[in-house]
Parts: sequence; C-alpha cells; structure tokens
Amino acid sequence: MGVVVPIDESSPDPEASLADLVALVAGGMERVNATILSRTGSDVQMIPEVANHLISSGGKRLRPILTLATADLCDYAGDGAVKLAASVEFMHTATLLHDDVVDESDMRRGKVAARIKWGNEASVLVGDFLLGQAFRMMVEVGSLKALDILSTAATIIAEGEVMQLTAAKNTETSEDEYLAVISAKTAELFAAACEVGPVLAARPEAEQAACRAYGMNLGIAFQLIDDVLDYGGTSDSLGKNVGDDFREGKITLPIVLAVRRASETERGFWKRTLEAGEVNPEDLDTARAILRRHGALDETMARARHYGDRARAALAPFPASPMKQALLQVVDFCIARAY
Amino acid sequence: MGVVVPIDESSPDPEASLADLVALVAGGMERVNATILSRTGSDVQMIPEVANHLISSGGKRLRPILTLATADLCDYAGDGAVKLAASVEFMHTATLLHDDVVDESDMRRGKVAARIKWGNEASVLVGDFLLGQAFRMMVEVGSLKALDILSTAATIIAEGEVMQLTAAKNTETSEDEYLAVISAKTAELFAAACEVGPVLAARPEAEQAACRAYGMNLGIAFQLIDDVLDYGGTSDSLGKNVGDDFREGKITLPIVLAVRRASETERGFWKRTLEAGEVNPEDLDTARAILRRHGALDETMARARHYGDRARAALAPFPASPMKQALLQVVDFCIARAY
Repeated sequence: MGVVVPIDESSPDPEASLADLVALVAGGMERVNATILSRTGSDVQMIPEVANHLISSGGKRLRPILTLATADLCDYAGDGAVKLAASVEFMHTATLLHDDVVDESDMRRGKVAARIKWGNEASVLVGDFLLGQAFRMMVEVGSLKALDILSTAATIIAEGEVMQLTAAKNTETSEDEYLAVISAKTAELFAAACEVGPVLAARPEAEQAACRAYGMNLGIAFQLIDDVLDYGGTSDSLGKNVGDDFREGKITLPIVLAVRRASETERGFWKRTLEAGEVNPEDLDTARAILRRHGALDETMARARHYGDRARAALAPFPASPMKQALLQVVDFCIARAY
Repeated sequence: MGVVVPIDESSPDPEASLADLVALVAGGMERVNATILSRTGSDVQMIPEVANHLISSGGKRLRPILTLATADLCDYAGDGAVKLAASVEFMHTATLLHDDVVDESDMRRGKVAARIKWGNEASVLVGDFLLGQAFRMMVEVGSLKALDILSTAATIIAEGEVMQLTAAKNTETSEDEYLAVISAKTAELFAAACEVGPVLAARPEAEQAACRAYGMNLGIAFQLIDDVLDYGGTSDSLGKNVGDDFREGKITLPIVLAVRRASETERGFWKRTLEAGEVNPEDLDTARAILRRHGALDETMARARHYGDRARAALAPFPASPMKQALLQVVDFCIARAY
C-alpha cells in the first residue's frame, strides 16, 4: 500500500536550504572575506598563521551571513554591515580559540586545534587579538548602539561559557539551566549578529527586536541540533567527531532528558562516564542506546523544531521578499543537519 | 669627613613619590573602585570570585589613577573618566589573567594564581568577561575616539604578547626587538590610559599626543624597572618573586645587554638556562653575578631613567599645577622602586 508523503513534511535538503541565502549575500560576503583576510594581517607572523588556520578551515560563516542578510532585509544600503559581519566572525573565531583551551580539545573543524599546533598561549593571545580587531572595526562603523549590542554579547558569551564550566560534569543540570547556558554561549551571538543589521538601517525598535528574536531562537535550535549530531544524529550513520561531548563529560540536552528518566543502573552509568570521567571505548555505544531507549535525541529534535518555529514566526512583521524567504529556509537548514 | 648629598640626587622615597598623586585623585578613585566592584558582579558566581581574587589583591591601580589624573590635568569635569579608568583596569586585569595561562604561572601578586585555584578555563573566560565589560563601559561613555584608542590598545597588547612568545627563549633578541615587545605589551596601555583623559576633555591634538607620550615613556620605564627588580634590583636585598623571569626563560633587557657582552662560557650558561630551560637552584645566583659583572642592571636602570626623562619632558606644554607636579613625581616612583 503506497503512502502519500505531503510535501511540507519531507526532509528538506540541508545544503539547498542554505543555498538561496548564500547566493543573495554573495557580493557582500566577498567583501567580508576580504576584510577578514586584511584584518588578520599583522607584522607579528604568528598571528595571521594561527588566525587563518582556523578561519580558512571552512566554517559556513553563518553568523556574518546573517548580519548581511538582516541588514539587507531592512533595506540597509551602507558600508557598515560588511565590517560588522567581519567583527561577528572574529568574535566567533576568538571564542573557538579560547574554547579549545578551555575544553582541551585536540581537533577543531576537522583540523588539529591551534592550541595543539602552536600551544595554549597562541590560542589565548590570537583570540585576544581578534577580539581587539573586532572592536576596532565596530568603532570604525561608528554606531554606538551596534557597539553596545556586540560588546554586551561578548560579556554574555563569556558568562555563558563560565556557566557551562560550573554545570559541567553535573548530571543534575536541569533543562532550564541548560537553556540558559546555550542562550548565552551560542544563541546570543546569533541574536546580536541579526540585531545589528536593522540597527544600522535605523529601523523601528520592533523590527530590531524581531530580528534579534529570529537570531536568538535560530541559535538555540542550532545548538540543540549540534547536541544531537554529537551522538550521531537520529540516523544510524555516524558523522565526524561523534562522541566528543560525551568523552569531554559535557552535559547537553539529550543527556538532561535521559537522566530525568534514568533507571538506577543508567544513572550510575552517566555518573561514572560524565561526572567521574571514566569512559571506556564501548561506553559511547551504550550511551547512544540509552538515549535512543528514552527517545532523548528525538525529543531534543522536537525542542529544536519548537525554537525553529519561533525563529520563523519572529520574521512575520517583514513583508514577503526573496531575502525573507531565504532567512526562513535557513531554519530548515539548521534543523535538517540532524537527519 | 662628611659628604653633602645634593637634594636632587638623593634617592626619593618611592611611596612618597606616589602619595601626592594618590591624594589628588582619591575622590575619583573611590568611584572607580565602586564601579569595578559593581561591574565584576554577575549571577554566575564564579565570575566575581575569580575577578575579585585578582582585583582585590592590592595592585596600586596605577593605570586608572593615570586616566583620572590626565583627565584632571586637562580640566575635564565630566563623568566619563571614572568609567574609562575602570575600563583600563579591567583590560589590565584581563591581560594578567590571560598571562597566567600563557606563562603557566603559579603565583600572581603574592597570591596563588587564579588558574591554579580555578583552572585555566576560568582564567581565560573571566578575562574575556572583563574585556567585554570594559568595552561596555567605554560604549556607555560614548566617545568614539576613546573607544578607538582603547580597542586599538587591546589589539596592540595582544600583538606584543605574541611577539614576546616568538622572542621567548631566544637569547639573540636585540634591544630594539625587546623595546618593541614592551612598548606593545606594557607601555601601550599606559599610553592609552593617559591619552583618553585629554580626549574626553576635547583638548587639542598636541595635548592628547603629549599625554600619550608621557604614558608611553612612563610605561617603558616601568617595565624596565620590573625587569631589574626580577633580578633583585640593584641593592643586595632580595624582594619577593625574584627570579621568576629567569626561571620562565624570559628574555628581558638585562639579559639582552649581558648576552651582548658574554664570554663563550657565559653564552653557554644563558643558552642552557634560558633557551634549553635547564635551571638548577644555584643558577639564579650565577645569573645575578654575570649581570652585575657586566653592569647590565645598572645599564637597564640608565635606560629606564632615559624614558623617565622623556615622560617628564612630554608634560612640558602643560602649565605648572599640583596635578602636573604629582604626575612628574610618579616617574620618580616608578624608577625608585628598584633602589
């Protein structure tokens, strides 16, 4: 018996969902990339080496893309968005460099982490350099409101990282506590990246708030999907770097949801692996089996879709346009990564 | 036979040299300290804990004092100087936190380093938080020129630290290279701290440049004296933390000057201890003996006095006043520490 699959419930192709947006901002992103390249320049040779190791390793540059896109959505026609987009990417890169030191990671974006190649020192200091350059570019743009948004974001991101440090290895972390962590450490930069566009365009407060809400909810959805992907997604095929969070004892939403329903035996398993850090090679498979048993990955996906819906709804005040359509599709892109 | 000591050649009492300035800015510094206290506040408990561990450990707060003093020298009467002074202290504290991770230090200001007590993670992230708060305060003050000066300083400081990393353990470092390092990593923040005062007061470019030059030269003198103090000063009595630079293999000006005049045996000694890092307990005494033999500490003092003279000369355009007098005395304070 055949089943008719309604079109709106088919899994979208994640790359296709991003392609429209990438095409729409292609011209601006060329200038952003040129700015990034020139602003990592320094007479101190190690700085461009370390910075470009990470920057050239092919992240999607989703955050600066969002800055350009929301500026365009608000009909901004000036030069400022390019520099702010580059600033946003520098803030993100600085966070990654400092994260590697914090997490003692060996790999980042499929390459050896900068801290392994050049040492913790270089990761800390080049991160500081990029943060400084980010603020210099913001100052050049000259919008105090944008400066306020992005410097506040820098503070909140650091707070979120410290919160995560405090929550780390604590399997009693609640869903609310976890949401507070990822709202600060991940979603705040998405929110700020989307808010500065309408600010530059001097659009009404309501539109600034709408773009901010879009970014915030998209950022939460994005992080939740990352959490799912770290346990191999909902499919049976394993992607790269599966199990990093588990081996580092990171408490993520799938864990929070599974711990809440855990048997005594399972609770002991999570305490041994995540709190005590005693992880054997076969434990990842056990962890995945427990998560599946409780539907924790599917439930995390459902949460991600909830925030995705809110991101889409936030854009309602804006009239239909190809850019709005592309921004709505990005939500699909973020979520479809997990299938 | 009695010797008449001319007053102007007597060693000044270092604390007395600072006392006048401290008294003149006492009111402003109370507000700076209150601002520092309130801006390290966070719902994330670990942040004020780590920040105050270092902030309350009794640095002299020379940099924010200089911001208030130069603002006052330029008859600035607004509120902005207090927040910029607190920003400068936060930038300094963030640098110290990140330095501890870079240097793998165990002690800081006579207390256990934050990284030992809370881990490298906390030092990196609380440093990032303080940098973010520093920029937020600058944004609140609203002077784009001051923002430009301080964000540029943040970039240059990071560059200086990376330069030091590259020069580290290289006994062939030249005096010029070393001066470039300390101009960036230490003196730049002194320069920026002194420049933003006249900028807030909207004084002519020449006066802004004069205050900047005062801070830059004072900062270089300050660092050179620190270098001397790390080998016990020019007296025979040893202060605290003597030998830290030596044990960490840091190349400082006394070393640069001594290496230039080293015998083959001495060159071998410096290469073994500073480059290869093979340091035995008796090596510090040997190092001090070699430095004394070549007059390297006295010559470093002479360099410091040269920059001190330039700092004093930079203030020539300003009419006589108690504040100007106090700023001139601070140069004596910085240099007299080594006697």
